[in-house]
Amino acid sequence: MASSSSLTLSQAIFSPSLPRHGSSSSCSPSLSFSTFSGLKSTPFTSSHRRILPSTTVTKQQFSVRASAAVETLEKTDAAIVEKSVNTIRFLAIDAVEKANSGHPGLPMGCAPMGHILYDEVMKYNPKNPYWFNRDRFVLSAGHGCMLQYALLHLAGYDSVQEDDLKSFRQWGSRIPGHPENFETPGVEVTTGPLGQGIANAVGLAVAEKHLAARFNKPDAEIVDHYTYVILGDGCQMEGISNEACSLAGHWGLGKLIAFYDDNHISIDGDTEIAFTEDVSARFESLGWHVIWVKNGNTGYDEIRAAIKEAKAVKDKPTMIKVTTTIGFGSPNKANSYSVHGSALGAKEVEATRKNLGWPYEPFHVPEDVKSHWSRHTSEGAALETEWNAKFAEYEKKYPEEAADLKSIITGELPAGWEKALPTYTPESPADATRNLSQQNLNALAKVLPGFLGGSADLASSNMTLLKMFGDFQKNTPEERNLRFGVREHGMGAICNGIALHSLGLIPYCATFFVFTDYMRGAIRISALSEAGVIYVMTHDSIGLGEDGPTHQPIEHLASFRAMPNILMFRPADGNETAGSYKVAVLKRKTPSILALSRQKLPQLAGTSIEGAAKGGYIVSDNSSGNKPDVILIGTGSELEIAVKAAEELKKEGKTVRVVSLVCWELYDEQSAEYKESVLPSSVTARVSIEAGSTFGWQKFVGDKGKAIGIDGFGASAPADKIYKEFGITAEAVVAAAKQVS
Amino acid sequence: MASSSSLTLSQAIFSPSLPRHGSSSSCSPSLSFSTFSGLKSTPFTSSHRRILPSTTVTKQQFSVRASAAVETLEKTDAAIVEKSVNTIRFLAIDAVEKANSGHPGLPMGCAPMGHILYDEVMKYNPKNPYWFNRDRFVLSAGHGCMLQYALLHLAGYDSVQEDDLKSFRQWGSRIPGHPENFETPGVEVTTGPLGQGIANAVGLAVAEKHLAARFNKPDAEIVDHYTYVILGDGCQMEGISNEACSLAGHWGLGKLIAFYDDNHISIDGDTEIAFTEDVSARFESLGWHVIWVKNGNTGYDEIRAAIKEAKAVKDKPTMIKVTTTIGFGSPNKANSYSVHGSALGAKEVEATRKNLGWPYEPFHVPEDVKSHWSRHTSEGAALETEWNAKFAEYEKKYPEEAADLKSIITGELPAGWEKALPTYTPESPADATRNLSQQNLNALAKVLPGFLGGSADLASSNMTLLKMFGDFQKNTPEERNLRFGVREHGMGAICNGIALHSLGLIPYCATFFVFTDYMRGAIRISALSEAGVIYVMTHDSIGLGEDGPTHQPIEHLASFRAMPNILMFRPADGNETAGSYKVAVLKRKTPSILALSRQKLPQLAGTSIEGAAKGGYIVSDNSSGNKPDVILIGTGSELEIAVKAAEELKKEGKTVRVVSLVCWELYDEQSAEYKESVLPSSVTARVSIEAGSTFGWQKFVGDKGKAIGIDGFGASAPADKIYKEFGITAEAVVAAAKQVS
Repeated sequence: MASSSSLTLSQAIFSPSLPRHGSSSSCSPSLSFSTFSGLKSTPFTSSHRRILPSTTVTKQQFSVRASAAVETLEKTDAAIVEKSVNTIRFLAIDAVEKANSGHPGLPMGCAPMGHILYDEVMKYNPKNPYWFNRDRFVLSAGHGCMLQYALLHLAGYDSVQEDDLKSFRQWGSRIPGHPENFETPGVEVTTGPLGQGIANAVGLAVAEKHLAARFNKPDAEIVDHYTYVILGDGCQMEGISNEACSLAGHWGLGKLIAFYDDNHISIDGDTEIAFTEDVSARFESLGWHVIWVKNGNTGYDEIRAAIKEAKAVKDKPTMIKVTTTIGFGSPNKANSYSVHGSALGAKEVEATRKNLGWPYEPFHVPEDVKSHWSRHTSEGAALETEWNAKFAEYEKKYPEEAADLKSIITGELPAGWEKALPTYTPESPADATRNLSQQNLNALAKVLPGFLGGSADLASSNMTLLKMFGDFQKNTPEERNLRFGVREHGMGAICNGIALHSLGLIPYCATFFVFTDYMRGAIRISALSEAGVIYVMTHDSIGLGEDGPTHQPIEHLASFRAMPNILMFRPADGNETAGSYKVAVLKRKTPSILALSRQKLPQLAGTSIEGAAKGGYIVSDNSSGNKPDVILIGTGSELEIAVKAAEELKKEGKTVRVVSLVCWELYDEQSAEYKESVLPSSVTARVSIEAGSTFGWQKFVGDKGKAIGIDGFGASAPADKIYKEFGITAEAVVAAAKQVS
Repeated sequence: MASSSSLTLSQAIFSPSLPRHGSSSSCSPSLSFSTFSGLKSTPFTSSHRRILPSTTVTKQQFSVRASAAVETLEKTDAAIVEKSVNTIRFLAIDAVEKANSGHPGLPMGCAPMGHILYDEVMKYNPKNPYWFNRDRFVLSAGHGCMLQYALLHLAGYDSVQEDDLKSFRQWGSRIPGHPENFETPGVEVTTGPLGQGIANAVGLAVAEKHLAARFNKPDAEIVDHYTYVILGDGCQMEGISNEACSLAGHWGLGKLIAFYDDNHISIDGDTEIAFTEDVSARFESLGWHVIWVKNGNTGYDEIRAAIKEAKAVKDKPTMIKVTTTIGFGSPNKANSYSVHGSALGAKEVEATRKNLGWPYEPFHVPEDVKSHWSRHTSEGAALETEWNAKFAEYEKKYPEEAADLKSIITGELPAGWEKALPTYTPESPADATRNLSQQNLNALAKVLPGFLGGSADLASSNMTLLKMFGDFQKNTPEERNLRFGVREHGMGAICNGIALHSLGLIPYCATFFVFTDYMRGAIRISALSEAGVIYVMTHDSIGLGEDGPTHQPIEHLASFRAMPNILMFRPADGNETAGSYKVAVLKRKTPSILALSRQKLPQLAGTSIEGAAKGGYIVSDNSSGNKPDVILIGTGSELEIAVKAAEELKKEGKTVRVVSLVCWELYDEQSAEYKESVLPSSVTARVSIEAGSTFGWQKFVGDKGKAIGIDGFGASAPADKIYKEFGITAEAVVAAAKQVS
């Protein structure tokens, strides 16, 4: 029973997306394990569930490899290593050549460290890319993705078959132009935009450190993996990487090991033209352990020794600067930007084959290399089996902890969790939605074991502290309040890493809404990579008052409504805030942004969790027959104004409907029938009010309606005054309603 | 004649905005200098021109101060310094108290360094805040703006009178909640969003270094000023500051001196909770000279010595870490976050008055302090007069250089510059708009002396190199190609600094359009602070192909169309690219973004510079009477598709108008009559096509029209294939046109 349960757990997959663009390839075996025997069924339901093979590998075999990974590898035959490394190089060269598009330079230079990582160091199970306790690998220099695809191919991942390599960067391919976790099982996060990956890796390492501290017991180290990352000069130049790495040093993430591919070439040429800082000294100043491997091209033992040293340093993350030659092996293009982002061309491919002594056809993996790598399938299965047994033990001894951890691994939310959400009546005290948000955050943290987060140095303004927990810090990593400092971009990307570590980790992060501008790169990756981060964005309009236009969002609501796969919520009161959180928690593959007020708002009659969860709904209506004289549409703090205007208009004998449009994306998802019931097409007299850009509102108010908003920058003054001066008032709504009806 | 010309030049002001919210104060003398004698008229026209006073200060007096600034100051009576410093503290305390809003902590801690800078070190002319050769000061920790307002007040700037101090953070005030260059003459740039200011300061120092290298002669150092900046822990944590400071070190900006207010407190409390890196070591790794002033509260001589040392280091920027106590002087709140962002409260104000021995009424400036500071008016005027004389000499000897420099200072573009813009006919070869952009950039650089810029490590993809110039580097600062490295956010903010240094400096910067996400914080500040930066954003859609969804913009056009005071251009071909550049150059107080294609596009019949400059215009029409059967609207690379669809529809006997909507904001500015002539309200059969989000298009296609676009993420595949799969085709337009008409 315990065993079945634990096996089930390891099978619980990360609910990966099917490739978005359809898999046109008929030889796509990644979702089937029928070639393996010993399948067991699992009680967990998941639409894209993977079924695990059992294997015949014994526990002993497993423990040898696991406990002495680096040590044993030095015994590997040098010739096969070299051959394997060249296989990686040529798979990359050949795939880029066939696509006539891509980046061969990095894979050619980083093949040695890539080989050592995937063949000698990392623990993973290629037949279950979602095994919980695997080491994580992130290619922060995502353009070099053929390195990772080649490694996944050699390691035996079903997601990268020979046919996939041949379809690199083509429509429907499972291996797109940059690493995408939602396309390629085995890829942990989505990279390409530089610096995101190293920050994601910090998040993955945070997740591991946190879960290890919470769940490991003296007799059971149930959470225990490393996070490896390769980053290049480009990542190093990006500010986000400094933000994230400063936090990694502060938090003492000892199991984060970053390889800096120091090849001195970026797209514009030699890094001398723009990047002459002392990177190693910078990392030391950030609290990292730094090692320099001077010969990354052929210095296998140097690389191995560096990893060993990095693992021995437990209280600091390690950066291994590995000096490499971009395009290593290409006689005429190595060490130049021309090998960075273009196919080598037939002639240079030929010259490189000759130079590296590679007689094989394109895409060929020599038998001895194949055979050498083949052990990872059985070893990986053994690692997982071993861990499953360990978890079964753990579950017996620590059933409560096991239940929490299981929920975090599988993403199955505890039954009835949503009952914890607070509700409000019109008699409940008026309050700022940022405060109401804090009530929700604290309620959710009590019932959701994987709920954690924090603010970019605005906890007391964003109201994001979880009162029952302390701070996640170097020596208290079991706690759940993350202190990001003033590092919005790093914060977002770290949360992406946390969210993509385990489906039941639900990270939230916070700053002023206007400063989403600082972290938009990371937010977009949340949306693209299906990381269900919850963005708690307070001070959501001119209503923040005196801080003025630098701090007052105007175009931000519109800018996120236009972004795919993200929910932009602007709740009006307590019930709508709770409704927004309900959806945000449920939507694990879609990030949510909550725009919350600094200023007090009343609890309105007619609002509800259910209504908010539909994105748009009727808050009040004194008409009959679905045909009011006018429809007033508001969001957030302006719903109150719409309600007041409706009262005025009703006094004058009008029939008025007030609609709250708390989340446009959710509303768009509703049935045509429902939408017609809320915004009947026959009623063209419509007025919207929102303290932000009117851009996009025409969709709801139509050609004959009127959108009240702010299309210039804000001002520094008390909030009430600004509202009045900017015409965000009930009087303006009444006047507009009369104009349009 | 020469003298008159040069005097005029110094008077040429930076064409500041009038306060945007109107000046309700009746005692607003900032735009009048009637109390000074010796006014001279100036032939330069400017709507908000400032007229300079002449003074009786002799040249000798001037040169003593200018050449031995720091040295002479040590003689200043210590008591008056202390009193002046406390005046600054209490002006800040009192203003925040009266507003019951603001940040007293920083001004109280930084008053000593602020005093030394404005009273002892900096050269400026308070009666002409726009004097070209002034030292620049940037308060990167913008929330502490009362420090700067107090200093401007004491120094004699007309923009900050006692009444202004009393209206801090109120509607119509000239001193808003954060420093805004467009509200307060004397404020150089707009800060508040952390990290922007230090990056702006790098841009100001770049401008100085560049202009000095280009225009100074062995016998005439006509450009010669320092850039000072105060930044806090928050700025230090932001990635943008690391990006900009890495470049500052690389470029060896010896005249950039940054004061790091090391007070160990941020909003969430002690910086220990999130910020434990070794900042000094990091700056050393970035190539800065670093000095530590251990007692920033009372160590005046330490501060003075540090500045002296910093000035002696010519080949590196200097960071002076000044350890201070936030809220210094407040007996119960100093050294805590509670003094960071709230008024002290009456009781604590009283206690602080007692503690610092300050018997005065709120807002009182003691007579001896007033008298001590009063010399800056005459000294500043003398500095400017001196410089004017120098310039007159320079102009005689080097008339060509003087003409260029004058154009850069005043922003007057050379006559006929626009004739340099290339034009195209349908017979001109098809080309990517990124390449056509490069033709424009190179044409403009030949005729605009202040035109310079570069890319974030994508020069060869963005096509931004100016072929006739070399690289701006440490030892070749006279060149005009800036190499920003992969630092988009820093790049944008540096360009803001360059643009705000002199009205005729026209910086452009470039990356892939999708990576505007990385620099949106800086782009918004361009828009808000009226910095006419030109953003050259290539690879503007799924048309970039194989790099995939991480690199393909979708929502970006909409997101900038919603942003105030920025022009979002998407030109379709050569003529439209030239038209976009024409407007972008002319609009010196509005930044522009050009979204440009990676893929080849034909030169279309009917496009024109004039049309593009209107934002929207008719490209073709086979109807009469302003009533075509259907209007097809396209932008950028999809205008070609609209044209093809029109041809199809015409074959079927339809009357079809094709409209190019290259810049929505410019189109919105046109007269109602013009707009009716382009998009007649009677024609509701409209179809738009754009390879991006359809968000916002309803405004132009109306309730009955149809917008063709992409509302999900892109894909990795060759461009043609993606266009077809995503339905961005002429066939789709034809089908939609039949549906709506």
